[in-house]
Amino acid sequence: MKKRNSRFPASRMLIDDLVAASRILARHEVLDAYGHISARSDRRPGCFVMSRSLAPALVTAADLMALDADSEPLPGDARKAFIERYIHGEIYRSRPEVMAIVHSHSASVIPFGVTRSRLRPIYHMGAFLWSGTPVFEIRKHKLDNDLLVRDRGLGKALAGSLGACNCVLMRGHGMTVVGDGVPEAVYRAIYTEMNARLQLQANLLEGPIEFLSDEEGRRSTAANRGTLERPWELWKKQVLGRK
Amino acid sequence: MKKRNSRFPASRMLIDDLVAASRILARHEVLDAYGHISARSDRRPGCFVMSRSLAPALVTAADLMALDADSEPLPGDARKAFIERYIHGEIYRSRPEVMAIVHSHSASVIPFGVTRSRLRPIYHMGAFLWSGTPVFEIRKHKLDNDLLVRDRGLGKALAGSLGACNCVLMRGHGMTVVGDGVPEAVYRAIYTEMNARLQLQANLLEGPIEFLSDEEGRRSTAANRGTLERPWELWKKQVLGRK
Amino acid sequence: MKKRNSRFPASRMLIDDLVAASRILARHEVLDAYGHISARSDRRPGCFVMSRSLAPALVTAADLMALDADSEPLPGDARKAFIERYIHGEIYRSRPEVMAIVHSHSASVIPFGVTRSRLRPIYHMGAFLWSGTPVFEIRKHKLDNDLLVRDRGLGKALAGSLGACNCVLMRGHGMTVVGDGVPEAVYRAIYTEMNARLQLQANLLEGPIEFLSDEEGRRSTAANRGTLERPWELWKKQVLGRK
Amino acid sequence: MKKRNSRFPASRMLIDDLVAASRILARHEVLDAYGHISARSDRRPGCFVMSRSLAPALVTAADLMALDADSEPLPGDARKAFIERYIHGEIYRSRPEVMAIVHSHSASVIPFGVTRSRLRPIYHMGAFLWSGTPVFEIRKHKLDNDLLVRDRGLGKALAGSLGACNCVLMRGHGMTVVGDGVPEAVYRAIYTEMNARLQLQANLLEGPIEFLSDEEGRRSTAANRGTLERPWELWKKQVLGRK
Repeated sequence: MKKRNSRFPASRMLIDDLVAASRILARHEVLDAYGHISARSDRRPGCFVMSRSLAPALVTAADLMALDADSEPLPGDARKAFIERYIHGEIYRSRPEVMAIVHSHSASVIPFGVTRSRLRPIYHMGAFLWSGTPVFEIRKHKLDNDLLVRDRGLGKALAGSLGACNCVLMRGHGMTVVGDGVPEAVYRAIYTEMNARLQLQANLLEGPIEFLSDEEGRRSTAANRGTLERPWELWKKQVLGRK
Repeated sequence: MKKRNSRFPASRMLIDDLVAASRILARHEVLDAYGHISARSDRRPGCFVMSRSLAPALVTAADLMALDADSEPLPGDARKAFIERYIHGEIYRSRPEVMAIVHSHSASVIPFGVTRSRLRPIYHMGAFLWSGTPVFEIRKHKLDNDLLVRDRGLGKALAGSLGACNCVLMRGHGMTVVGDGVPEAVYRAIYTEMNARLQLQANLLEGPIEFLSDEEGRRSTAANRGTLERPWELWKKQVLGRK
Repeated sequence: MKKRNSRFPASRMLIDDLVAASRILARHEVLDAYGHISARSDRRPGCFVMSRSLAPALVTAADLMALDADSEPLPGDARKAFIERYIHGEIYRSRPEVMAIVHSHSASVIPFGVTRSRLRPIYHMGAFLWSGTPVFEIRKHKLDNDLLVRDRGLGKALAGSLGACNCVLMRGHGMTVVGDGVPEAVYRAIYTEMNARLQLQANLLEGPIEFLSDEEGRRSTAANRGTLERPWELWKKQVLGRK
Repeated sequence: MKKRNSRFPASRMLIDDLVAASRILARHEVLDAYGHISARSDRRPGCFVMSRSLAPALVTAADLMALDADSEPLPGDARKAFIERYIHGEIYRSRPEVMAIVHSHSASVIPFGVTRSRLRPIYHMGAFLWSGTPVFEIRKHKLDNDLLVRDRGLGKALAGSLGACNCVLMRGHGMTVVGDGVPEAVYRAIYTEMNARLQLQANLLEGPIEFLSDEEGRRSTAANRGTLERPWELWKKQVLGRK
């Protein structure tokens, strides 16, 4: 519990939310042994907080690390950080309003990153996808790649693909979503997966698929923000009874 | 337990059924953190009963609210009601024989609301779909919408789309089913999802799909009513051992 | 426990197997609140044993009933029997070597009963399907039907469709499999579902699908019989720790 | 616990890993009551270790057997071994660098063994498939077969199909993957299933599918080796709390 002293750059509430979020995402199978969630520090400008390299289902408060604006651990923390922490740092740099980020290998989303079909909002729960779901093609930035966003340059390129959107797909790898806080980022990670699953299934029927209009997407995104406390309360209760 | 006094317009049995139903629908993943079930009051004409705005898995007797014919909370109850309570109120108004209603974002049903394929009874468990599964297009009633049925006008329009059917799909949103009591509404919500899942899968095979005839649908609906006590007993037992 | 006296026409072992089988099939989601398993009596010729009308997950030894060759309860047993017990009685009559029968609404099997695609053995676990999977069309026998096999005549017609096969599909309803004992009938119910699921998925790929040859089906069916004790031991252990 | 004496040709750590691996694979539904994992002995050259014929979820240290280079039990061990132990022995013979092997009936993989579509790496977690996924057609080696690799000749033929690859599909049967240790073999069995599932789903979208390049496959395979400890830690914890 040494990490939770007064110098650790995250409030008790943010720490608790990040721990709960890791377990929630694992329980919903949006994350398996891989993937991560981070939050912008609410105590030290230019820092963000995420777990050391660890399966999300196992994360506790003591596993959280503070990373600086360049995605490097603060001095004195020698623990192994996630290789892909640059995803988070570079998005925080380019998107000042983003407060939390989830990177996952979300199963149903993968097919949309490797084909010509675009992921679009098929129902109001996925409304936040209205702003677009660009695909990050790592080959354009590094031909000899291993798919991983393993340095600041690739992180910056990913942030560039994301642009002003809420979600970016990563070809042959996964996806990254952003939110105005931990609950919204979790919500969006879960419903990106669900929206993708439904869109895949809808292709079995007689099209074309009628997606949400941009206006519906915009309005529904706002409406969902207003009821976010409801799923968040449930999800936290579902993981609190567990180790 | 203040709500369960003599003035609360629902019998002990109806209250217990509604609480069990919320948890059953969550356990069957017909509802997640969203969606709701209501029942017409068995004690006060013109009223119906449903939970306050809360994830269905968490509903207890104390969370139930009584709503009037216009879907507004009875005087003195200041708790936050579901935005979409108008779905329920307006269907109770237009369909006097309906005693319970489920509104869900049932996963396999969504694709049928956004494509040109009609949801039809593929096996006897979905027989009640024989009466038709119209699609409610909210845009026809309100262009600047957020998909939600958030007032009496939209509720009335939805009830109009439902007509005399047992199930209405809601484009880009979900579905609503009705029943002659809580067990039947739960049964229908569960088997609308299952029927949709099977119909989606059947599209992978060489068609055309042979659906139930209307006569089979009618007869099988009646037969299923006769054995409804069997699943209801199981489902209640499955959720009673839980919080 | 009155049923387990010396006059009940089933050995202790057969009773235990039937109770375990009901729960195994529910746990594997081959049965939900519907469907049933029976076994030919090992103590009284012309009788068979199955649960009273009850969800399979809830069956205990005390719920078992003995039924006569015409599928009627033995004198003195006034409990409600399954409507479709005639499925069992008429197959036992026409197939003397059959010792156990499962009737289910197995999800992945339904599409094969309502389309023109034939269910065939896609891997060795479904080898027993090599003998054919005829589809029972109840309309040919009773136009004004509710899909249910609710009398001896329909039971006989179903047994006629089954013929010498191991599995018969029932259009718009489900399927029935037979075995040389309770473990084999359970095995076949589980792997009919699994084979159907895999065959559905294989239709997403570039065909044609290479099924088992009849000779492979025959040999593999025999081989699977030799290792049946292995899954049976596992499945019983999985349900014994539960109520 | 007689097997864990000093003469048993496996270290305590290898025994523990094999037991955990059996349960991990069962928990991930890569194995059901069938299939097996083995490891090359770390104490006696030419030997390998695997469970006696038993459902993987039930395997304990006492169930492990040592088999010689010809896949036969060491003298004095009269327990029933798996029929298909020759899969393991012949691959260990032909591939000296392979230290562990999993044989499964992995559900999503089956369709790729019976159609003309090739299983290829759709995302970095399945990168190890870049080396190819040949299909073993047992009919070419034995016309009167029951699909099982039940002797050294068939084992050698399977090893021939595998060649230098990491994964071989077996038509109408399942698949076999190899690794440089128990954790890697487990990882590959799990992500072969997942990769196959995602590739099946991607066929619902507008192709062609962009797979990993060979170079990406090679680099990503190496990268995944570097983080293998993370899932392995999680998976072991998930099965240790269970019997």
